[in-house]
Amino acid sequence: MNPMNMLKDLALKTDSKIVFLVIDGVGGIRSANRQRTELELAITPHLDDLARSSICGRIMPVWYGITPGSGPGHLSLFGYDPLEPKHDIGRGVLEALGIDFDLQKTDMAARGNFTKVDKKGIIMNRRAGRLPTEKCIALCEKLQAKITNIDGVEIIIRPVRDYRFVVVFRGENLSSSITDTDPQKVGLAPRHPEATEDTPSARFTQQVVAKFVKQCFAILKHEKDANAMLLRGFSKDPCLPKLPELYKLTPAAIANYPLYRGVAKLVGMDVLKVEGEIEAEFDLVEKVWPKYDFFFLHIKKTDSYGEDGNVEGKIIVIEQVDALLPRLMALDPDVVVVTGDHSTPTQIQGHSWHPVPFMLYSKVCDADEIGEYSERACDQGSLGVFPATAIMSLALANAGKLKKFGA
Amino acid sequence: MNPMNMLKDLALKTDSKIVFLVIDGVGGIRSANRQRTELELAITPHLDDLARSSICGRIMPVWYGITPGSGPGHLSLFGYDPLEPKHDIGRGVLEALGIDFDLQKTDMAARGNFTKVDKKGIIMNRRAGRLPTEKCIALCEKLQAKITNIDGVEIIIRPVRDYRFVVVFRGENLSSSITDTDPQKVGLAPRHPEATEDTPSARFTQQVVAKFVKQCFAILKHEKDANAMLLRGFSKDPCLPKLPELYKLTPAAIANYPLYRGVAKLVGMDVLKVEGEIEAEFDLVEKVWPKYDFFFLHIKKTDSYGEDGNVEGKIIVIEQVDALLPRLMALDPDVVVVTGDHSTPTQIQGHSWHPVPFMLYSKVCDADEIGEYSERACDQGSLGVFPATAIMSLALANAGKLKKFGA
Repeated sequence: MNPMNMLKDLALKTDSKIVFLVIDGVGGIRSANRQRTELELAITPHLDDLARSSICGRIMPVWYGITPGSGPGHLSLFGYDPLEPKHDIGRGVLEALGIDFDLQKTDMAARGNFTKVDKKGIIMNRRAGRLPTEKCIALCEKLQAKITNIDGVEIIIRPVRDYRFVVVFRGENLSSSITDTDPQKVGLAPRHPEATEDTPSARFTQQVVAKFVKQCFAILKHEKDANAMLLRGFSKDPCLPKLPELYKLTPAAIANYPLYRGVAKLVGMDVLKVEGEIEAEFDLVEKVWPKYDFFFLHIKKTDSYGEDGNVEGKIIVIEQVDALLPRLMALDPDVVVVTGDHSTPTQIQGHSWHPVPFMLYSKVCDADEIGEYSERACDQGSLGVFPATAIMSLALANAGKLKKFGA
Repeated sequence: MNPMNMLKDLALKTDSKIVFLVIDGVGGIRSANRQRTELELAITPHLDDLARSSICGRIMPVWYGITPGSGPGHLSLFGYDPLEPKHDIGRGVLEALGIDFDLQKTDMAARGNFTKVDKKGIIMNRRAGRLPTEKCIALCEKLQAKITNIDGVEIIIRPVRDYRFVVVFRGENLSSSITDTDPQKVGLAPRHPEATEDTPSARFTQQVVAKFVKQCFAILKHEKDANAMLLRGFSKDPCLPKLPELYKLTPAAIANYPLYRGVAKLVGMDVLKVEGEIEAEFDLVEKVWPKYDFFFLHIKKTDSYGEDGNVEGKIIVIEQVDALLPRLMALDPDVVVVTGDHSTPTQIQGHSWHPVPFMLYSKVCDADEIGEYSERACDQGSLGVFPATAIMSLALANAGKLKKFGA
């Protein structure tokens, strides 16, 4: 039996409350020219205090050496093995959910990038020079005004942010077995969409997508900022089992950024509206505290600064979270997990494979003697390096939400 | 999805270079009458220096308590789960590949031992008193001169080293489902080969093998040094996926001994000719450095001395490797892995199940604070005890050869 099915059998509804404080990309590395990570450099008295009452370790979101995208990284935190094919979420679906789009079971979604191509149709800049969001909105409106239906399939075009948008193909019998038009490299032409299986549904969908691409290119042709677009991640709702049915939780997601809101929705969380940045997220936790027993509190900017290679920025965000932590602890949560969905070392300027510093606080966690929340301190933690998919069962156990297994 | 298939999807061809320095049987144990292992006793300033810039841990080649043979031990280092039946390599195939024999897909090979039996046909000495290689060659020539074909199956007999030889049965529809004639004990008679499945191919092969054994016994009967022979490990090429296709590597094997050259060939490495012992291996790495991006550098004698219970000998080989390490590092490799395929404690005088000291150096490895390459020091490493099959993905990640998994 896989652990997730076991939890489904063992989970109990109780009043205890669990908080997952997910500091995106929090992990860092040391390197020859900088002997301390951002977590080690940041002044974090409250996180360190919590470490003293927690068990610590390092989580591995996917597998040794594997750098997780945000989708698999988060699924793993919630107990879904990202290597299970049935847990694979397409990029299109993630983007659609991330803008609170009400995706229907039969919808097929793709992630779009506005882009610039030269006179020969070769991609010059995959992200159209980080197009301003208002321009993205205008381009989506322009396309939507002219394209609403292709061969009976309703076409819904929605801006996301910067150069990114979503297309949803709404109709019966649509297939997601369509290849990306995005070659993911500059210097190449956009690819023609192809069906990857020989079924009537894939053939039909391929024709619709090809017509859509052709019409978009005709409309965008004379635009200055973005004269083409690329599609990738054709996908449908993977219909994941949801947290309420799996773990008998009433979960809330407090996340500012689309992608994470999307994942949260997919696993059955109530995705709450946040007005503002980190402090607003903590305000919201306090406000809705009585209504839920599981809180996914997502901090994005550590990852953004990590990707930018901005050491100072990453440190500041960590310190902001640290300063707000006492407000969370004042609510007297039964279990608090602090970790990230992956590491984002500023030296690498991207997600990485390095295991993420992890701590779990509860009154019965059997705290080890780690006095600091950092990479090297968590290396000494009693949990060692362990799979992120184990976090959810540890959290449920510490919250008194799991029955004994077997007699 | 298993990790190996995942790597196949994620691997990128890049210029970065990876070295696996495999010190065969390097791991040892402490015991009541000797409080330090050979690695702890050896003076290894360069390995210890490298440890300071590496992440450390202990690898488990197969599973807790399982003592790996050299085949599974090495497969595991290269990312092949040795518990997968499809990764099972027979001893016959390993021996044949190890002498650079050009094994064909339909060939069926067995490992042979020349042996001495008494007048009643009871084995007195399984290895014919460690027969000199020239005698082995003479005996093989004698057998080959008289046996070339049995029932349409071509018989190829090749000496290996000492008392060991290989027989290759070449023909269509041969089966490897044949039991060993080697009882692996003195005091017993050689066994009759039996088919382990009831198929035409196994029945036919059993007859051919039985006739071969009978003919060999008749020819060897009056030989003084070795008057009989034993066969084991009937097997065919398992057709493993190869490193170039799995990981997009251009791999070279620098190994002196047949078995390791055989495994390397099986996983798709270029097996290079080495003229000499350890220093010659390092010479060769330097010489071919520009041509490859993956180097499997195999040091054999640590294992040999371990098997002999020769503490001093094992220490000397470790120190020889240590003295040569600066030459390897001067090539500026992107990733260096130092480990063994198993432990060979001198107290046990054989392979053992003890996890093997491991370190991985790269500029982005996030070095832990281990200042020594030894069993006890690696126990404190941030990787903990981990499966050897994870080494390849860690190495590829550290070499920048893996894409992100998922969006």
